[in-house]
Amino acid sequence: AEETTMSVSSSLKLPANSVSDDDLRAVSPALERYTKEALLGKVWQRPELTLRDRSILTVAALIAGLQTAEMPFHFALALDHGVRPAELSEIITHLAFYAGWGNAMAAVAVAKDIFSQRRIGIDQLPPAKEPLLPLNEDAEAKRATQVGNNFGTVSPGLVQNTTDVLFRDLWLRPALAPRDRSLVTVSALIANGQTAQIPYHLNRAMDNGLTQSQASEVLTHIAFYAGWPCAFSALPVVKDVFESRKK
Amino acid sequence: AEETTMSVSSSLKLPANSVSDDDLRAVSPALERYTKEALLGKVWQRPELTLRDRSILTVAALIAGLQTAEMPFHFALALDHGVRPAELSEIITHLAFYAGWGNAMAAVAVAKDIFSQRRIGIDQLPPAKEPLLPLNEDAEAKRATQVGNNFGTVSPGLVQNTTDVLFRDLWLRPALAPRDRSLVTVSALIANGQTAQIPYHLNRAMDNGLTQSQASEVLTHIAFYAGWPCAFSALPVVKDVFESRKK
Amino acid sequence: AEETTMSVSSSLKLPANSVSDDDLRAVSPALERYTKEALLGKVWQRPELTLRDRSILTVAALIAGLQTAEMPFHFALALDHGVRPAELSEIITHLAFYAGWGNAMAAVAVAKDIFSQRRIGIDQLPPAKEPLLPLNEDAEAKRATQVGNNFGTVSPGLVQNTTDVLFRDLWLRPALAPRDRSLVTVSALIANGQTAQIPYHLNRAMDNGLTQSQASEVLTHIAFYAGWPCAFSALPVVKDVFESRKK
Repeated sequence: AEETTMSVSSSLKLPANSVSDDDLRAVSPALERYTKEALLGKVWQRPELTLRDRSILTVAALIAGLQTAEMPFHFALALDHGVRPAELSEIITHLAFYAGWGNAMAAVAVAKDIFSQRRIGIDQLPPAKEPLLPLNEDAEAKRATQVGNNFGTVSPGLVQNTTDVLFRDLWLRPALAPRDRSLVTVSALIANGQTAQIPYHLNRAMDNGLTQSQASEVLTHIAFYAGWPCAFSALPVVKDVFESRKK
Repeated sequence: AEETTMSVSSSLKLPANSVSDDDLRAVSPALERYTKEALLGKVWQRPELTLRDRSILTVAALIAGLQTAEMPFHFALALDHGVRPAELSEIITHLAFYAGWGNAMAAVAVAKDIFSQRRIGIDQLPPAKEPLLPLNEDAEAKRATQVGNNFGTVSPGLVQNTTDVLFRDLWLRPALAPRDRSLVTVSALIANGQTAQIPYHLNRAMDNGLTQSQASEVLTHIAFYAGWPCAFSALPVVKDVFESRKK
Repeated sequence: AEETTMSVSSSLKLPANSVSDDDLRAVSPALERYTKEALLGKVWQRPELTLRDRSILTVAALIAGLQTAEMPFHFALALDHGVRPAELSEIITHLAFYAGWGNAMAAVAVAKDIFSQRRIGIDQLPPAKEPLLPLNEDAEAKRATQVGNNFGTVSPGLVQNTTDVLFRDLWLRPALAPRDRSLVTVSALIANGQTAQIPYHLNRAMDNGLTQSQASEVLTHIAFYAGWPCAFSALPVVKDVFESRKK
């Protein structure tokens, strides 16, 4: 993967606030070493997650954290790691809802340049509207009832949009597999310190096929991109989810 | 409102990291659809909050989240929705304290261009210092006593500045109505996941005239700009405030 | 300090999104007044922390919050306040781990310009690898055992990297004194609302020589750069740490 990342880095037209290897060396030779050895050389090579999964996680953490300086490199790397343009497009769309509209728009500003450089046209993107995946009516009825009972009178509009726009529309769009959509969501929740929302979405991710070993490794990987405190604040919550699923 | 937003968008000189309709379509036709239909077409049209209130909420969430890509569009839209330049100036000043100095400075960098384009001069801005609104001495004494008892020895400097600079100065500046100042504060707290600070400020907002129906709708609206997880983490806290005020 | 800050400001080539005094005045004369009077004129002059400590805190809060607009000014000011280039470099490296890789990279993009303007070459930076400070084996064994017992099976990779890369490498690098490294960490935790991680690191900071009076003043200072809500959410946690250390 290091070879891949290096070649991407050198071929890519980087925007103003991006950081080249030379820039990094001119400020912190130590951070260059950690990047190449501990991060790209070791963490990214661990077998618990594929390079494609790691790219999905990283892209989601960068968008959730508005870390624009790293976006050009990692958006390009994600495409090199097998994330299809349609999937990158859909990750950004998904994170408009899970990290905020402005975060998604910052990602759009970066992705448009990457797509343009690689001659990725609208024919490779998910259409604005397309036939949806089948809904698990039982699971959705249970979710909607629980949220409705708890918060239906606190914010009727939020509860209604959650059902109509998120769980009966966005989550059913076929451009991103439910398991990958969950990976994006969990990554954003950890990166933004939204620990209270982790249990529902980590359970959903594991119901959607994420293994416990992969979920463990999400924390190992995301610690570097979201920072150690976010990963450590997620640890007890993830522990509880793992334990609750054993019963 | 959709018409308004479209005309603003096309007449505005957008900065480098802003996103045009064409850019958005070139990355995610779906996100363009959600923006125009679910967000501008539906949420912004709901009668529970005026366009002016929605613009105040949105501007505050963008500044709190440092979402610079969306600032030019929404600062201009706020002025079109009846937020006076003096009020936009004061919202930025207020958020220096409630979202951090650097967040306010990022907003200044955007607002100066908008003000310049619209020939808004210093005569339309609040003066650096002006006669303050009358203080509710009883409420402030109660607040100061409670904070002093809890934290007076933990950080005497913070407690003193909170009284002198915030509650006996900033909050009394007449350039922004107390109810609007509260709206800005609550929006920033939700957008930054500062749930522990919501009860005091939501109660203050409702004491300052925000109705329960409006507070409910704040969550509906802010979910799009701050992301769903922030809105959902605020829900139980808002619920508690609503219930405590019934007693 | 005000004189210093003013002269820095005028001599510095500011990047695109930075804010000059004129820009600030053109948007908010009030925010200019608060900056010069309440913040630079009063808080920065309080004797409880040195200018060097305040610059370390501020730089850390800006990097943790990705507040790039204020970085050029405060990176330059930190150097003027006696933070050595090697220390600024190491603060950025440290925050890659404690605030996320992308936050550090945004800081690198700013620091490279400051270093270039001041002709600070690689000879003034900490080497990529150098002899480490001696490890307090007992304290580290206790930490590693506790984290291992709690989370060793939840995320083995995260736990292993925490030991190998953080506490047996990064924290022992001599380029930043342990007490200053703690100051950077605590500042980032407060600024990012990571209250659950404050007790361990504030205790470590105080074990490393930070006095209670200095810790109190950290909150006074950081409130302006991270925003009041972050400081207030940290208050009860800091209070508990102070009380637990009296026993």
